[in-house]
Amino acid sequence: MRVAELVARTREFIRAEVLDIDDRYDGDIEAAGGDELRVRWQTLAAKAGLLAVHAPVDCGGLGLGMVDRAAVFEEAGYSLFGPVALNVAAPDEGNIHLLDHVATEAQRDRYLRPLVAGEWRSAFAMTEPAPGAGSDPAALTTAARRVDGGWQINGRKHFITGADGAGFFIIMARTSGEPGDAGGATMFLAPADRQGIDVVRHIGTMDRSMVGGHCELVFTDLFVPDEDVLGEVDQGFRYAQVRLGPARMTHVMRWTGAARRAHEVAIVHASERRAFGSPLADLGMARQLIADNEIDLAATRALLLRACEELDAGHRASKATSIAKTFAAEALNRVADRAVQLCGGLGVSADLPVAKIARELRPFRIYDGPSEVHRWSIARRAVAEVTKAAR
Amino acid sequence: MRVAELVARTREFIRAEVLDIDDRYDGDIEAAGGDELRVRWQTLAAKAGLLAVHAPVDCGGLGLGMVDRAAVFEEAGYSLFGPVALNVAAPDEGNIHLLDHVATEAQRDRYLRPLVAGEWRSAFAMTEPAPGAGSDPAALTTAARRVDGGWQINGRKHFITGADGAGFFIIMARTSGEPGDAGGATMFLAPADRQGIDVVRHIGTMDRSMVGGHCELVFTDLFVPDEDVLGEVDQGFRYAQVRLGPARMTHVMRWTGAARRAHEVAIVHASERRAFGSPLADLGMARQLIADNEIDLAATRALLLRACEELDAGHRASKATSIAKTFAAEALNRVADRAVQLCGGLGVSADLPVAKIARELRPFRIYDGPSEVHRWSIARRAVAEVTKAAR
Amino acid sequence: MRVAELVARTREFIRAEVLDIDDRYDGDIEAAGGDELRVRWQTLAAKAGLLAVHAPVDCGGLGLGMVDRAAVFEEAGYSLFGPVALNVAAPDEGNIHLLDHVATEAQRDRYLRPLVAGEWRSAFAMTEPAPGAGSDPAALTTAARRVDGGWQINGRKHFITGADGAGFFIIMARTSGEPGDAGGATMFLAPADRQGIDVVRHIGTMDRSMVGGHCELVFTDLFVPDEDVLGEVDQGFRYAQVRLGPARMTHVMRWTGAARRAHEVAIVHASERRAFGSPLADLGMARQLIADNEIDLAATRALLLRACEELDAGHRASKATSIAKTFAAEALNRVADRAVQLCGGLGVSADLPVAKIARELRPFRIYDGPSEVHRWSIARRAVAEVTKAAR
Amino acid sequence: MRVAELVARTREFIRAEVLDIDDRYDGDIEAAGGDELRVRWQTLAAKAGLLAVHAPVDCGGLGLGMVDRAAVFEEAGYSLFGPVALNVAAPDEGNIHLLDHVATEAQRDRYLRPLVAGEWRSAFAMTEPAPGAGSDPAALTTAARRVDGGWQINGRKHFITGADGAGFFIIMARTSGEPGDAGGATMFLAPADRQGIDVVRHIGTMDRSMVGGHCELVFTDLFVPDEDVLGEVDQGFRYAQVRLGPARMTHVMRWTGAARRAHEVAIVHASERRAFGSPLADLGMARQLIADNEIDLAATRALLLRACEELDAGHRASKATSIAKTFAAEALNRVADRAVQLCGGLGVSADLPVAKIARELRPFRIYDGPSEVHRWSIARRAVAEVTKAAR
Repeated sequence: MRVAELVARTREFIRAEVLDIDDRYDGDIEAAGGDELRVRWQTLAAKAGLLAVHAPVDCGGLGLGMVDRAAVFEEAGYSLFGPVALNVAAPDEGNIHLLDHVATEAQRDRYLRPLVAGEWRSAFAMTEPAPGAGSDPAALTTAARRVDGGWQINGRKHFITGADGAGFFIIMARTSGEPGDAGGATMFLAPADRQGIDVVRHIGTMDRSMVGGHCELVFTDLFVPDEDVLGEVDQGFRYAQVRLGPARMTHVMRWTGAARRAHEVAIVHASERRAFGSPLADLGMARQLIADNEIDLAATRALLLRACEELDAGHRASKATSIAKTFAAEALNRVADRAVQLCGGLGVSADLPVAKIARELRPFRIYDGPSEVHRWSIARRAVAEVTKAAR
Repeated sequence: MRVAELVARTREFIRAEVLDIDDRYDGDIEAAGGDELRVRWQTLAAKAGLLAVHAPVDCGGLGLGMVDRAAVFEEAGYSLFGPVALNVAAPDEGNIHLLDHVATEAQRDRYLRPLVAGEWRSAFAMTEPAPGAGSDPAALTTAARRVDGGWQINGRKHFITGADGAGFFIIMARTSGEPGDAGGATMFLAPADRQGIDVVRHIGTMDRSMVGGHCELVFTDLFVPDEDVLGEVDQGFRYAQVRLGPARMTHVMRWTGAARRAHEVAIVHASERRAFGSPLADLGMARQLIADNEIDLAATRALLLRACEELDAGHRASKATSIAKTFAAEALNRVADRAVQLCGGLGVSADLPVAKIARELRPFRIYDGPSEVHRWSIARRAVAEVTKAAR
Repeated sequence: MRVAELVARTREFIRAEVLDIDDRYDGDIEAAGGDELRVRWQTLAAKAGLLAVHAPVDCGGLGLGMVDRAAVFEEAGYSLFGPVALNVAAPDEGNIHLLDHVATEAQRDRYLRPLVAGEWRSAFAMTEPAPGAGSDPAALTTAARRVDGGWQINGRKHFITGADGAGFFIIMARTSGEPGDAGGATMFLAPADRQGIDVVRHIGTMDRSMVGGHCELVFTDLFVPDEDVLGEVDQGFRYAQVRLGPARMTHVMRWTGAARRAHEVAIVHASERRAFGSPLADLGMARQLIADNEIDLAATRALLLRACEELDAGHRASKATSIAKTFAAEALNRVADRAVQLCGGLGVSADLPVAKIARELRPFRIYDGPSEVHRWSIARRAVAEVTKAAR
Repeated sequence: MRVAELVARTREFIRAEVLDIDDRYDGDIEAAGGDELRVRWQTLAAKAGLLAVHAPVDCGGLGLGMVDRAAVFEEAGYSLFGPVALNVAAPDEGNIHLLDHVATEAQRDRYLRPLVAGEWRSAFAMTEPAPGAGSDPAALTTAARRVDGGWQINGRKHFITGADGAGFFIIMARTSGEPGDAGGATMFLAPADRQGIDVVRHIGTMDRSMVGGHCELVFTDLFVPDEDVLGEVDQGFRYAQVRLGPARMTHVMRWTGAARRAHEVAIVHASERRAFGSPLADLGMARQLIADNEIDLAATRALLLRACEELDAGHRASKATSIAKTFAAEALNRVADRAVQLCGGLGVSADLPVAKIARELRPFRIYDGPSEVHRWSIARRAVAEVTKAAR
């Protein structure tokens, strides 16, 4: 199936099966049906050949590269529930990518295949409450201690997306060095029902469209056998990079879809509503909001595609993905905010889907690295490059 | 009691009685207790001499002018529930102001005194769904027809704040001319239990701190006797102006308090949280966010006070209040947004009160005139003034 | 020669031959030597195989497509004088493009070849003073009247770049319809020494790097023989479109180079200058300025390349070039402004080249369509597309 | 004379005597006549009772407080040459203020009186090239050594406004401690013709309206007798504060006048020029630019007046003046930039006075403390205040 066709079919699927439910429940996935709803959708998506299209072919996906994913995932993201309906939502989407690159054959069979098929969900347990690993991964405090036949993990994680109801976890824990050191993290796989994993609470965030929420977890003497070490010991930060760049970009793809929907809803509203004797959409200030949205969407997609081309060419693309993520997070928030403004009173209500999109988008300027942290590293790199060239 | 003391006591009251409940219920007034909670608070406030301090002295208030209100209302607004606890929340606060200026003695006794005392709440029924009166008041379609001994009103209103559970309504209806004409509106008073008033639904808005919500109403053959006409027939737009300027400014006062709280919470967070080896609050980008908040808050207050001075001097101050409202709505939203950003992941959660403040503030850029409509009239006036002077 | 090599050689040429003179004369081309200097540079560039590389191969160029031009022209633009040194400056660069597409063989020989070779310069006489053709081309008032053996042109033009000293003009004049009508313009070629062409004055603009300045012209009974009609009669607006899209994009390319230089100069300054105990470039607010510059440059290039790909594929790309031009003009101005700010007091002086770059860049937000006019048409198109799809 | 009358007369004077010359010479004071022109204007201003109205009464001024100065100085600033014409330009205006507070009676006679009368000009020699005193005054390197009967000064200064042709200098030099220490600066008075003072060069800045330019100076074994020490030894930083707050605010006053002129010129242009069938000033995007200018001007004045009230009440008002200066510098630059944009092609030319105003205003975001340095200290203060209150 060509990408253009995949895009068209994704678009139809979202409009036929997902969008109404999204609107009816104001983007609240738990209210809409939670995991049961997810399973129902993913079954339909599998029949339609649209499930986890980015996954490797041997696991049931279409093995789409990053550039090819862009338009498909944007269509999925047109509904807040679209990505989960098609099994291309965070964190599973990124975990599929990670496992495809790092898992052993046995891990591939046990963890990856059922994840692609939607038989279970997963969570990526890296972020920790202060003073642990947040923007600064080197602060990692969750520790894995060598024990007979494996490792014993203790620590606390928070903002772990999808944790409640996840089938298994990918856990980042320190295996050497001290908090503040860069080196020495390892990734571990652990089924959710293993003793020593407690989902302590849901953190009540403003976004509500993620199945399984954003949770706080505690690991207490959690045992992980050697065969569930993901990749090599002490190479966790390196694997995190494998996941990081693409995951940043697929977030951008999905949120571009959501922001585009807000934009289109606002345009339709502005062209139907009259003010001061003409359609709202003909007034200069409304046109400015609309044009700025077009510009922000175009620039987001352009930066995204440049970064995806780099990733598809096998580069780590840290700078390109960091710039694209930072720009996109801010631009797409502006798009949603302008859409709200264009819709006036209805824009802050649930009568139109723009307020909920604005609400869901806001955390993107913080999740996956706050804009300030990205800017810090973008600048550091720029100074290094330019001063080196100037010497 | 001097204003400075009033400010201090308001501050104490909010911290002692209101703030914890606000945080516990994430700013959702219905979840927190709704109208019952309001009555409990207002009883306490009355004992403390802090109830409706702007109301006229003969009705039980302190008759504070606009400048004197500013700091007091800012302290009230420090909690999202503070204004209602002290009976200085919209729409009652503005309705008190309006009735004080326009009501007859009989209306004053029947409607104003119990409103000041918190014995009932009120609503101001002006805004209509498209194509009725929104940003353009001349589009007013709700109509009052002369009948024996009074008027009969038919029409539909929406975004009527506090309507559910209100004791009475101030209703704006057309008494001459056609929709699109400027002239010919009249204000009517009507107890909520009178036949012909239906609160059709709550409009589900992103803000949740207003008792009685934002509602859609239908008036069907509502009879209003002559003694309940507020002011003179066909002078409704003029009285709306009496309410408008001060109401804009008291909104600014209250929201300044809310934004200041978000700012202070973010500063405390940033000074306790460490990142990259130093307190977050010492990093340049964090300082920029903090400084920009200080600047936005200072400019908001400065514009507010200039406008209040004009109002206290007896001017209509349309330009000054329009500028102050527009600037404030945007500036205070920036303040809340920066506070969210400074708090990182916790900033988009209910663990800190910044996300809810951002949520409650967003509609202020639309309510009481979207920024675009204000800019339109600010510019028109500027062009008229400058080209006249240049001739 | 591959593009990468062309880029590298362009870079060397600019640094070896042009940049010092640019700095010594603060970007003032007349002070630096004007047309004589241009000829000297273009002779060197021809020897180096770097002259008018975008020109068609049969005329002596390398026939580079739009995507290939991007990096080369950016290197040329690194110096304000680079584009003219390499004969890729406006308006000659765009006129070469236009003539290549529209000129007859005879016109090609007479006008295009010597233009590519740098034997003369040209000007494109379209914009008129109010109430003539400015942002709205349909207001065209300069008129050509049919006379025996050709046409007689009367009218006034202004902001005609390079007019003083140009060897010939391409003149847009109305050949049917009235000012306010869309249709009926024709392009004419006219040697500058033909009777009836008066360069009335240089308009004193803030930018000073263009050879021949921005001039006001008057055509008085200017005779143009039939063989100097460029393309078909009444098809002038269509040919203007042929020139327009690519010309917008090559402006972006060149100005990206200039903005990048300001950015790099600022980085070097900030890494050498210390403040409050560390290099300026390590402070958070400086890093924010630097990162924002990186983001703006990256987004500019990404949008530019998308538009160039469309143009190379044979599309008119009006939307893509309009978005890219609007974004770039604003983004590159921000880059230059931040560079000035980073350099502190020296940033507003001629000691560093950042102030002059800011000065030269400012008009780009107005020339080739003010941002507001572009936004107007971007929005109109978006509303048409979205409402059509929504039906 | 009441302030309102003073404002009106200042306005008339500027329009009658100054504005045309400003426009004719594109704001270049040296081209317009330099110091000779200044003397001519100041003689006229003295006759009109408008010379140095802020100066103390015993020296010939009207002793206006800060609030009263605001509207007068804004009128003066309406022309770029207005402040110098009325002897209220930097640096003389601030030096008058400083000398009034610190000078001995003898110094008052010798330096202050002739300065108020316009018999000579002065310069304030504080800022040094890197690594000396710039944003960080503690880096002061110019040193004064105790010698028989006075002090001997050696050092280098730059960006010394008005130095070329100044009659005397106020020199800040270190009298104890080392560069990097806070303490130990002293102010010295020195006639310009004293041996050891060299005006090395004019720094070529983008602004051109200051008589005497911005210069680089070298002091070589400059002898200053004890009677020319200004204030007490080692108290220089304290006196600098006396000058600093008011000087910041008078800058704001003057530049508000300049920005207002750009705004008014743009409004007149936009109301005369038609585009797409209506006056430009009626189009929504133009109205947005105009409204934003009104808002920025109003907020600037509001912040300015709050700070002036604090200063008039005898406070140092560091926070208020820092906020007002930072906001104003950015807001007024936005105003000028929008005025340029509104005027289209003419906006970047010398045909209208908006481009020159934009050019003159740009350095204000850097002079008297770059915005970044102000933000740094605003935030530090805010964090200290809020965390202290939260404890």
